[in-house]
Amino acid sequence: MFFASDNGAGATPAVLNALIKANDGYRAAYGNDDETREVENLISALFEKQCYVFLVSTGTAANALALSALTPPWGAVLAHKHAHIVEDECGAPEFYMHGARLIPIDGVAGKLTASGVEQAISSYSPRVPHAMPLKAISLTQSTETGGVYSVKEVTEICAIAKNAGLYTHMDGARFGNAIAALGCSPADLTWRAGVDVLSFGATKGGALACEAVVFFNEALAEDFIYRRKRGGHLISKHRLLTAQMKGYLEDWLVNAKHANDMATMMAKGLQDKGIKIAYPVEANEVFPVLNGKQDAALKAAGASYYPWGDKESLVKPQDDKNIFRLVTSFATKREEVEAFLRHT
Amino acid sequence: MFFASDNGAGATPAVLNALIKANDGYRAAYGNDDETREVENLISALFEKQCYVFLVSTGTAANALALSALTPPWGAVLAHKHAHIVEDECGAPEFYMHGARLIPIDGVAGKLTASGVEQAISSYSPRVPHAMPLKAISLTQSTETGGVYSVKEVTEICAIAKNAGLYTHMDGARFGNAIAALGCSPADLTWRAGVDVLSFGATKGGALACEAVVFFNEALAEDFIYRRKRGGHLISKHRLLTAQMKGYLEDWLVNAKHANDMATMMAKGLQDKGIKIAYPVEANEVFPVLNGKQDAALKAAGASYYPWGDKESLVKPQDDKNIFRLVTSFATKREEVEAFLRHT
Amino acid sequence: MFFASDNGAGATPAVLNALIKANDGYRAAYGNDDETREVENLISALFEKQCYVFLVSTGTAANALALSALTPPWGAVLAHKHAHIVEDECGAPEFYMHGARLIPIDGVAGKLTASGVEQAISSYSPRVPHAMPLKAISLTQSTETGGVYSVKEVTEICAIAKNAGLYTHMDGARFGNAIAALGCSPADLTWRAGVDVLSFGATKGGALACEAVVFFNEALAEDFIYRRKRGGHLISKHRLLTAQMKGYLEDWLVNAKHANDMATMMAKGLQDKGIKIAYPVEANEVFPVLNGKQDAALKAAGASYYPWGDKESLVKPQDDKNIFRLVTSFATKREEVEAFLRHT
Amino acid sequence: MFFASDNGAGATPAVLNALIKANDGYRAAYGNDDETREVENLISALFEKQCYVFLVSTGTAANALALSALTPPWGAVLAHKHAHIVEDECGAPEFYMHGARLIPIDGVAGKLTASGVEQAISSYSPRVPHAMPLKAISLTQSTETGGVYSVKEVTEICAIAKNAGLYTHMDGARFGNAIAALGCSPADLTWRAGVDVLSFGATKGGALACEAVVFFNEALAEDFIYRRKRGGHLISKHRLLTAQMKGYLEDWLVNAKHANDMATMMAKGLQDKGIKIAYPVEANEVFPVLNGKQDAALKAAGASYYPWGDKESLVKPQDDKNIFRLVTSFATKREEVEAFLRHT
Repeated sequence: MFFASDNGAGATPAVLNALIKANDGYRAAYGNDDETREVENLISALFEKQCYVFLVSTGTAANALALSALTPPWGAVLAHKHAHIVEDECGAPEFYMHGARLIPIDGVAGKLTASGVEQAISSYSPRVPHAMPLKAISLTQSTETGGVYSVKEVTEICAIAKNAGLYTHMDGARFGNAIAALGCSPADLTWRAGVDVLSFGATKGGALACEAVVFFNEALAEDFIYRRKRGGHLISKHRLLTAQMKGYLEDWLVNAKHANDMATMMAKGLQDKGIKIAYPVEANEVFPVLNGKQDAALKAAGASYYPWGDKESLVKPQDDKNIFRLVTSFATKREEVEAFLRHT
Repeated sequence: MFFASDNGAGATPAVLNALIKANDGYRAAYGNDDETREVENLISALFEKQCYVFLVSTGTAANALALSALTPPWGAVLAHKHAHIVEDECGAPEFYMHGARLIPIDGVAGKLTASGVEQAISSYSPRVPHAMPLKAISLTQSTETGGVYSVKEVTEICAIAKNAGLYTHMDGARFGNAIAALGCSPADLTWRAGVDVLSFGATKGGALACEAVVFFNEALAEDFIYRRKRGGHLISKHRLLTAQMKGYLEDWLVNAKHANDMATMMAKGLQDKGIKIAYPVEANEVFPVLNGKQDAALKAAGASYYPWGDKESLVKPQDDKNIFRLVTSFATKREEVEAFLRHT
Repeated sequence: MFFASDNGAGATPAVLNALIKANDGYRAAYGNDDETREVENLISALFEKQCYVFLVSTGTAANALALSALTPPWGAVLAHKHAHIVEDECGAPEFYMHGARLIPIDGVAGKLTASGVEQAISSYSPRVPHAMPLKAISLTQSTETGGVYSVKEVTEICAIAKNAGLYTHMDGARFGNAIAALGCSPADLTWRAGVDVLSFGATKGGALACEAVVFFNEALAEDFIYRRKRGGHLISKHRLLTAQMKGYLEDWLVNAKHANDMATMMAKGLQDKGIKIAYPVEANEVFPVLNGKQDAALKAAGASYYPWGDKESLVKPQDDKNIFRLVTSFATKREEVEAFLRHT
Repeated sequence: MFFASDNGAGATPAVLNALIKANDGYRAAYGNDDETREVENLISALFEKQCYVFLVSTGTAANALALSALTPPWGAVLAHKHAHIVEDECGAPEFYMHGARLIPIDGVAGKLTASGVEQAISSYSPRVPHAMPLKAISLTQSTETGGVYSVKEVTEICAIAKNAGLYTHMDGARFGNAIAALGCSPADLTWRAGVDVLSFGATKGGALACEAVVFFNEALAEDFIYRRKRGGHLISKHRLLTAQMKGYLEDWLVNAKHANDMATMMAKGLQDKGIKIAYPVEANEVFPVLNGKQDAALKAAGASYYPWGDKESLVKPQDDKNIFRLVTSFATKREEVEAFLRHT
């Protein structure tokens, strides 16, 4: 009953096999090899467009490096106040952006809204040179609270951003879960909707440590080889990353759908027992409101999960109730969900 | 005949097996797991001292992060003018040190000398607050040109540094080759000699992407968890790194000795043919002076290696001769060396 | 009728005379002169304590440099969401802090409250190493909206901060106005209340360009000579700053009281005419709510002032009314206030 | 007998009078005033070209800010190894450039040579993305050792730089001394020769604290308002700087010529006494080689000056002789020189 994180399992069989297969033989170091070109082509094909692809080993690196390409050090980047880049990356974005600012804004149930973004932009006073000029916005897809932006929502927010001269970054640490949930094409959810650069995460979806920074805009990618190298994120034995990405792409949507299904099954089972869920369950996370007794029983039974603060939740816990986070992954077994429900 | 780099092969069998073995099951993310403690203990045992160990995925990250713990942004760090941190890391040290300066100094045949370091320090004018104060020195062991500092040499340089109030960093991307060459204990070559922090490389020696930043001084390590995280270098599925390090340590010295032996065999074979070697061959690199015909014949036969500029070499190439770099590794086969020699 | 800013006038006669007087003769450069020691002693005497004093030429430099001494690059600093450091310094704090974060928090009518600070701290989740650790808080005295923290308020907030391990910075660009308003001693309002470092502004109060960063804590000041120099803020002909500070201190409180009095007179006059004031008038700023006709008439009559957004104002303007900012200074003439009132 | 620095005197009468005159009345803050436009026009007229002019209060700020506009954080800037930006600014360039590197290169007697620059560029290996790409070069005019680049020399070096894709910065802290020495037009010595941005110093030449960053290339100046503000270098009461620059430009060349003449007189007098001078005396600095007895006698007589290391000097001091630096300025009196010579 491991629901603590989608970082808790290892690699999928496809990823592990790809790694094993790629281990033999010599390769030019630092990505100057055929597999790297192959992965770039795979991702470009997936997104139906020539993409500029850079592999790195962590989501924090992907996000921080991507953002650094969108703003000068004196710029500002809008993001949901509970975004991973705001709350969970220890200032990596500010480090890589050389001091540019993340401006936290409110959303609804963990998602930015078009009107909220519009309000944040229109109320921001660009007093040159006193205020930091707005340069970009970052969306998380799927969100930290298990929500998914529709293509229409992404398109609307990107349009507002573009209209104000802002670039759009998408933190896709759980991009596969969003695609699996929406059933749309990766292109429709990104560059066709107006996204300029995507952190395309594979780690949570089944790789060990592999994320692609995918630029849809060549000019923004121009300096990225330098940015990545000076961040210490150019892996010399680059096959480590290319193999993972190749393995990941073999069955990423099957795995993402499984994770989503497990979350849906969990949510339904909990609701059937009268337990409230704090956010819409649209991807691979479920945030049940449990009382102390339920929590204790689950912990006693060996369930692993973390408490979650009240972050724009739709339910306000009372008495001895609290919101908890359950995350499913490719590795989640139906039996784990059933066991969890049994102990609730 | 791959002699382009010790980054060109994949993982050793031990490393790959460790990865496969570690892939199963759930683990707490971000290094909050038993294997991480186990690796810390392994390394502490290896160095006969409680060490403060942080795993990252690249040597550049290890070096830049380590150096950032030794100097404030206005400080200066002495290093050999051809050190990897000076020539090959695209300013990663300056990035992580927030603008502190690397001061390149001369050595002999690619190695710093005690007298050279002493001279660099004594001639540096510390006009407060106009000059950047010296804060650290970095040694590379083994060096970029295949040399190895003896325990005595390290000890002398560290003593001079310490006497001037400087910390000592050792870039040990090829630390295993140095230990294999010297036959000394890791402790004697590091903290007992005065080294404060070591970039303990496993990648070149047989891992896929794994380096340990090893602090021998607890106070210097205090903030490192933050430094690593905000650099985007905290791997969530941390088993990727712990497994590699465990696998690496199983036979690191056997592998390093093999690489060194292949280099020695190569050097001897070349010298037997009257070819000059530009630097002493003490670890896993050989720098022959080849003429255009020899170079062309080797390339035609499929040998892979890079040209090397004249960097404090003991031989000054003339006519159409140039210095080239040959690097051996755990993966180098005796037959490759023989074939190379045959085609020379 | 100049009420646009307290940066709009030149220097007071005392400051100008001090400059003229100091112009003659040779001095050691970079503050290695007797006047610099004299100013340090003057300020230490003023604060009844050995202070560590560093003169710079702008308030932004004073604030950003001071904050950089309170937090590592991965730390976070609490500040009112409308503080000058948040809204008006183009990211200078983040630049000098190397990416540390300003966390904007709510106050009441532009002032932080003890309960608000307590809430901000207690609700901040210090998940090591994912969240940026809280390291400091910054108060503005007097505030951007003309409010003044009492000694008790400062003391309470500093105690909460200290209890949580945070340092306290005070942005005293208008410190003189606060002292003149409260009639307390500078010591009581700063270090005795728990403040660690003060940006002691002279510019707005009557200098041309002179601010002192005043540390009450020696350890925090240790590296400041380097910080100031590498920021380009060590003035070579240092007499420019020492003379201003000496001239300023001759009659700073007389001048501050005059500015405050002019604001009080203005506020009273406006209220007598039924005009609402958006914030308590405690120092040298008045924020009247004017309708379009009033605004137009004043502009036509030559009054100079800026519109002000609704920032925690106590009055919510309706219809065609808006909040405007009037700032008085040492240079404000009674006749200017009278003229302004006449045209309202 | 003050020869310690050209930062040791106050302002010229013209500068002081301009300050006094500018003190009256209200002005829009932050340079949004007529005098600022006037100074921009004055400087554009002086350089016979539309210039993009930004005033700051220190030479270090001017240099560091200017350089930050010429290189990304991963770039490298060539400079003479004894340049002020290398030796005397405590890493301000690296701070403002966010970690870009200064690459110190050799010159002859303190001046870069075209062949030396060509060699430095051609021997620099641009291994993407491992080496930091060369982005700019910085010349000091006149140099730290009192030399002056001819128009031809500047033109040659700029051409080499441009040909390699590098921008050229000129550190003109003593630009007036160079113009006075050469008798050429400011345009010929800067943009017509290929200079992209000039730190146009007024402080050493007679202001109190005023330097102009003068861009000849509009695109490079685009973001400078933000750079200056976030460095804390936008002076609110901007008249402090405009008045100084206006006063300075009234008689800058007269003053510079006087300083140069005093140096020439000093050098001639010393040479007449058989004292060797370590560098050609072309501007306002003289570097005599004095023995211990001479030094002691001068100090006893009240002369103020500093020792100088052996930095590419044409004379190698022997026995108890050392090189010392004498700097003359607008304020240097003929009697001071005579007295100095008398005591030698």
